[in-house]
Amino acid sequence: MIFDFVEGGAYDEVTLRANETDFSDITFEPRMLVDVAKRDHSTNVVGQKIAHPVMLSPAGLLRVAHTEGELAVARAAGKVGAVFVVSTSSNWSIEEIAEVATGPLWFQLYLWRDREVVRSLVERAKQADYKAMVVTVDLQVIGKRERDLRSGMKVPPKFTLPGVLDVARRPRWFLDFLKGPPIALRNFLGIIEGDDTVSHGEFFNKHLINASANWDDVDWLRQLWPGPLLIKGIMTVEDARLALDHGVDGIVVSNHGGRQLDGLAGAIRALPQIVDEVGGRADVILDGGVRRGSDVVKAVALGARAVMTGRSYIWGLGAAGEEGVERVLQILRDEIDQTLALVGRPTLQDVDRSLVNLPASWRSGTKG
Amino acid sequence: MIFDFVEGGAYDEVTLRANETDFSDITFEPRMLVDVAKRDHSTNVVGQKIAHPVMLSPAGLLRVAHTEGELAVARAAGKVGAVFVVSTSSNWSIEEIAEVATGPLWFQLYLWRDREVVRSLVERAKQADYKAMVVTVDLQVIGKRERDLRSGMKVPPKFTLPGVLDVARRPRWFLDFLKGPPIALRNFLGIIEGDDTVSHGEFFNKHLINASANWDDVDWLRQLWPGPLLIKGIMTVEDARLALDHGVDGIVVSNHGGRQLDGLAGAIRALPQIVDEVGGRADVILDGGVRRGSDVVKAVALGARAVMTGRSYIWGLGAAGEEGVERVLQILRDEIDQTLALVGRPTLQDVDRSLVNLPASWRSGTKG
Amino acid sequence: MIFDFVEGGAYDEVTLRANETDFSDITFEPRMLVDVAKRDHSTNVVGQKIAHPVMLSPAGLLRVAHTEGELAVARAAGKVGAVFVVSTSSNWSIEEIAEVATGPLWFQLYLWRDREVVRSLVERAKQADYKAMVVTVDLQVIGKRERDLRSGMKVPPKFTLPGVLDVARRPRWFLDFLKGPPIALRNFLGIIEGDDTVSHGEFFNKHLINASANWDDVDWLRQLWPGPLLIKGIMTVEDARLALDHGVDGIVVSNHGGRQLDGLAGAIRALPQIVDEVGGRADVILDGGVRRGSDVVKAVALGARAVMTGRSYIWGLGAAGEEGVERVLQILRDEIDQTLALVGRPTLQDVDRSLVNLPASWRSGTKG
Amino acid sequence: MIFDFVEGGAYDEVTLRANETDFSDITFEPRMLVDVAKRDHSTNVVGQKIAHPVMLSPAGLLRVAHTEGELAVARAAGKVGAVFVVSTSSNWSIEEIAEVATGPLWFQLYLWRDREVVRSLVERAKQADYKAMVVTVDLQVIGKRERDLRSGMKVPPKFTLPGVLDVARRPRWFLDFLKGPPIALRNFLGIIEGDDTVSHGEFFNKHLINASANWDDVDWLRQLWPGPLLIKGIMTVEDARLALDHGVDGIVVSNHGGRQLDGLAGAIRALPQIVDEVGGRADVILDGGVRRGSDVVKAVALGARAVMTGRSYIWGLGAAGEEGVERVLQILRDEIDQTLALVGRPTLQDVDRSLVNLPASWRSGTKG
Repeated sequence: MIFDFVEGGAYDEVTLRANETDFSDITFEPRMLVDVAKRDHSTNVVGQKIAHPVMLSPAGLLRVAHTEGELAVARAAGKVGAVFVVSTSSNWSIEEIAEVATGPLWFQLYLWRDREVVRSLVERAKQADYKAMVVTVDLQVIGKRERDLRSGMKVPPKFTLPGVLDVARRPRWFLDFLKGPPIALRNFLGIIEGDDTVSHGEFFNKHLINASANWDDVDWLRQLWPGPLLIKGIMTVEDARLALDHGVDGIVVSNHGGRQLDGLAGAIRALPQIVDEVGGRADVILDGGVRRGSDVVKAVALGARAVMTGRSYIWGLGAAGEEGVERVLQILRDEIDQTLALVGRPTLQDVDRSLVNLPASWRSGTKG
Repeated sequence: MIFDFVEGGAYDEVTLRANETDFSDITFEPRMLVDVAKRDHSTNVVGQKIAHPVMLSPAGLLRVAHTEGELAVARAAGKVGAVFVVSTSSNWSIEEIAEVATGPLWFQLYLWRDREVVRSLVERAKQADYKAMVVTVDLQVIGKRERDLRSGMKVPPKFTLPGVLDVARRPRWFLDFLKGPPIALRNFLGIIEGDDTVSHGEFFNKHLINASANWDDVDWLRQLWPGPLLIKGIMTVEDARLALDHGVDGIVVSNHGGRQLDGLAGAIRALPQIVDEVGGRADVILDGGVRRGSDVVKAVALGARAVMTGRSYIWGLGAAGEEGVERVLQILRDEIDQTLALVGRPTLQDVDRSLVNLPASWRSGTKG
Repeated sequence: MIFDFVEGGAYDEVTLRANETDFSDITFEPRMLVDVAKRDHSTNVVGQKIAHPVMLSPAGLLRVAHTEGELAVARAAGKVGAVFVVSTSSNWSIEEIAEVATGPLWFQLYLWRDREVVRSLVERAKQADYKAMVVTVDLQVIGKRERDLRSGMKVPPKFTLPGVLDVARRPRWFLDFLKGPPIALRNFLGIIEGDDTVSHGEFFNKHLINASANWDDVDWLRQLWPGPLLIKGIMTVEDARLALDHGVDGIVVSNHGGRQLDGLAGAIRALPQIVDEVGGRADVILDGGVRRGSDVVKAVALGARAVMTGRSYIWGLGAAGEEGVERVLQILRDEIDQTLALVGRPTLQDVDRSLVNLPASWRSGTKG
Repeated sequence: MIFDFVEGGAYDEVTLRANETDFSDITFEPRMLVDVAKRDHSTNVVGQKIAHPVMLSPAGLLRVAHTEGELAVARAAGKVGAVFVVSTSSNWSIEEIAEVATGPLWFQLYLWRDREVVRSLVERAKQADYKAMVVTVDLQVIGKRERDLRSGMKVPPKFTLPGVLDVARRPRWFLDFLKGPPIALRNFLGIIEGDDTVSHGEFFNKHLINASANWDDVDWLRQLWPGPLLIKGIMTVEDARLALDHGVDGIVVSNHGGRQLDGLAGAIRALPQIVDEVGGRADVILDGGVRRGSDVVKAVALGARAVMTGRSYIWGLGAAGEEGVERVLQILRDEIDQTLALVGRPTLQDVDRSLVNLPASWRSGTKG
């Protein structure tokens, strides 16, 4: 059940994106006999100096992976200087997470129907000193797999028989699970009442999803939130241009739908065109398919200022809590460090497009 | 035996086409922050407003899949507003199917040797208010697999020993099977006498197949049938042009031979060139390889007004009769609906070529 | 042992070529509503009208597959009007095969060191009314697998222990095997004496292989043999041009080395360029990778007058002797017939390059 | 443990390069009827006539594969006239190997931090009559797998429990192993004291690796070593140009990182551009992915003067010592010989780019 939930439940944010394989089609052109003794993998995104170029994607309901959930993640991210993008649907509240965090926090939200709810959350994020706002725009409807959960996964959970049997085989996890406060979307305590038995899917559908969301909502949010504003879920140059027109500070190239929608290219494939379109007027972040440090360097070579990753840190969380997340981030940092040395670019600032070769097929695709 | 028959017996019409994989080479360019709250997946084909863009391909002998056969299909199609293209070789007659149908029916036929037989069927279809005529032109000879059936599958069936053993393991299906009238090509009762022991293959070969069929036959039929006339089985721009010259209203791009003839491209691959050639002078329908709602949206993006699918609904029929067919069509409709939302095109009318990327290899292939 | 021998022993001629897959990269552009009632799959090669466009490749030592060996093949080929290209290293002599043949025979030889041996064989082929001479030019050295046979396969065979055990499991085949005359290269009885214990590989190496063979030898043979002369083993346009310069009537495009030499393209891939170079001044035959009737039609579309196939008929021979070979040829003929109908080209003369699409990658490869 | 060590321990030099598959994308254009009776596969590299175009890559710690280690390799290489490139980290000293060698020896080193150590080794190599110096430049940091060895593989080795069990199953190897002198990096006896318990990885990291190495170090070495100087590890035309500017005699195209760094192209793929850039001003050698004689001919066709191979001879060494290495080299020589005959190019000097076709995708890749 843990497995199913991580894979299936925290659907939107746990980037199960397609096309990790697109990364492997990119090859390096490594340079030798460059002095690489002093290496630096810090970066600068939306005006913020960040020590670790890998950000932690927004992912809901992390207490299901580990009883400490988002608190453990926030502590681990702080230790290595990585940005943790806290999900709206986290199991601990905005304030609870901010209290334990030692590193930079960003906040993720949706453009909901009820603007008062959005306004209230934005205000709380501002008060709790979150450093940037990430708006997820590619959840226009509840995806297929989400819908399948309706009968099973409740918030708070109602265990089904298979679920109970599953728990019986993992007594330690279950005890840990029970030690914490009841699982809930704690950002919504007090906001949305009387819905304690709705499933995750129904909850999202009823309160969060807004199929009418459009650029006017972005304009409204832009007024509300003075800090850095990023749009997550852009895959086309057309939308990147619109994002610039509406004053965003950053664009997260992401094919959220890798498994929700058949037929999307890998996010890394959409990246270079969007970077070209943006032309430095906003910062671009790549989300999706990042598994190794070399993937991070490839994304930076194609113009990303940083990357987001979800699944890898959630597995770290499930395996060993705070320490697991920290270890995953350390491994990625070591791999980035080693890649920089071996390709002859001591810092991320030295990484540019001349470092990589793209397959011919990426360029020659034709519209329609 | 059921399996073998559906796969092998209803050979011509049950599109077992090659190259579903061609669909997966097409990727979407999804647009975000478009108001997609009001979605519409109706379409307009040969002047007819149709609620469901998925049509049910002509398939013969459906009583083998389920005792109610075409009657169940006609009822299910009507419930979701899908067009059912009734096969010449159906197990219920033109009139019997029309009687139970609640939605639009089209009729499929071949350009047979004996024009009187064709004339009679066309007249009956006209009387029974069938809305369009679909002429299948890609069965010039009996395919290989058809021929293999000669010794086994009779019309009416003569059970072979393996067949009998097979039936013994599925008593319920067999009882259902016996409840209905004897299996027969009921459109031919009274037309073709004394052939009650010929196999399906022999029957086709003797009475239906006409290797001499040509565009003169289309001209003749064009005079005979005043309503919308479509040609099914076109794979080249040259034939599309000829079809226009001969006054057809629609072209069904189809590689019927996907498994009959080695070496045909996927139908979806032939689609865009044919759409370009036709230039709106006729409506184009895509038949072959459609498995998911996203495939339907891709076909529409490349210029199809609708798609036809065979195998999926026949499995639905075999599994759960009328309800099974309805469920299959509902799933496809839901997937189309979701795809439209996720790519930012609320209606099928908003779907155009800018929505998709084709692989470079599709364009650069060279003749000979 | 039978299996090993057919696969490995009759090395040169039994086309085990690479890249049957190259055939599947070619797709048809089928035309509909063409009158295909009257179909004809005869062809015309080096001035000879031939009923069946599939020729039987030269293959040595066929008595190992079936006790009647080349005699059975010659009878079967005659029944369907196919050309049997008799190998120099056949187990029955030129005259013995001619005696039973009812259809056209061609003869295959090598450009050996000892011209008197060649002269003698050419003279015998002339006397026995063989209709064309095919010179294999791509066996400059004994290939790797051939060499591996040295210790095992003798002419006549000396059975090794594994061989004996193998035979013990197939008593019927062994009895048949013993019924005939002792296995020998009967064309060489009287020519090469005292070598009854040499292995197949050693025999070839010592008496047949001539690493110095060159176009002068072709000129000499051209004088010797007044009938149609074909060169087998050409893979480049440069060699095709030379073949024309040296007065050949036909070119057999063949990558004999499919398994002997790593790194050759499929023969079908080399075909169109060679056909273009030849420009009708000689007839081109395709050898290698043909498994189905549709492959034959593809080769003809790319300019071949006929194809050669080896492995398929040898398996037919091993399985059922004369009848097996005939059946294999009938299946291929039926498949060709059906393909012609389904692509709308009633005769092989109607088949041209506009019938096929080649993958873009075939054209754009760059030298070095 | 042997396996792990050969695969993992002698990490740098045992070319486990990626993309052997890149070789198989290259096809030959074989020419027929060329007199290939007299074949010659000798070559000329950095002014030296060499009988065998396959060189033995530098590989450290060969006594782990076989107790005689580098001594056996040197003897075997001499028997077939192949160049043995002795690794800095060999288990026998420069002088010990030179004493038994009967063929040409080259020496490999790194550009270490302590120039006095380098100067001393260069001087010894000069005295011992090594014919060329190969500088490996692509080990800027210790790779991942190297690091994993830290706890296990010591110099001299400290056996772990799994290691001991493994040894218990191979008593003969272990006895042989003990017969020789203790395993050590004998070139460093006297140079580096008191480090007898450091692991291989730690030793490399502490004493050999120099992340600051740059072209100034090459200039310094160029002054020190008057004989032929080669740079190993170049993958880009930019670095090839710099190598020329710094006066090298040869460039070894090598993607040492095939398994150390994700995302490098196969070495053979980088070869033709580098050869074009160099334009004959230095000799180019290909290292990586060579498994068969045909690969050698392909590399020569693309402009390499010779190739290096590591893994194949080390397996030969492990399997049968000196005789095993000799056998591997003989097989490669036979395959080269046969390939030359079958493609119609009797000598390596006849091999040029017109012999091969490259896939279109190699040329059309775009930077960034």
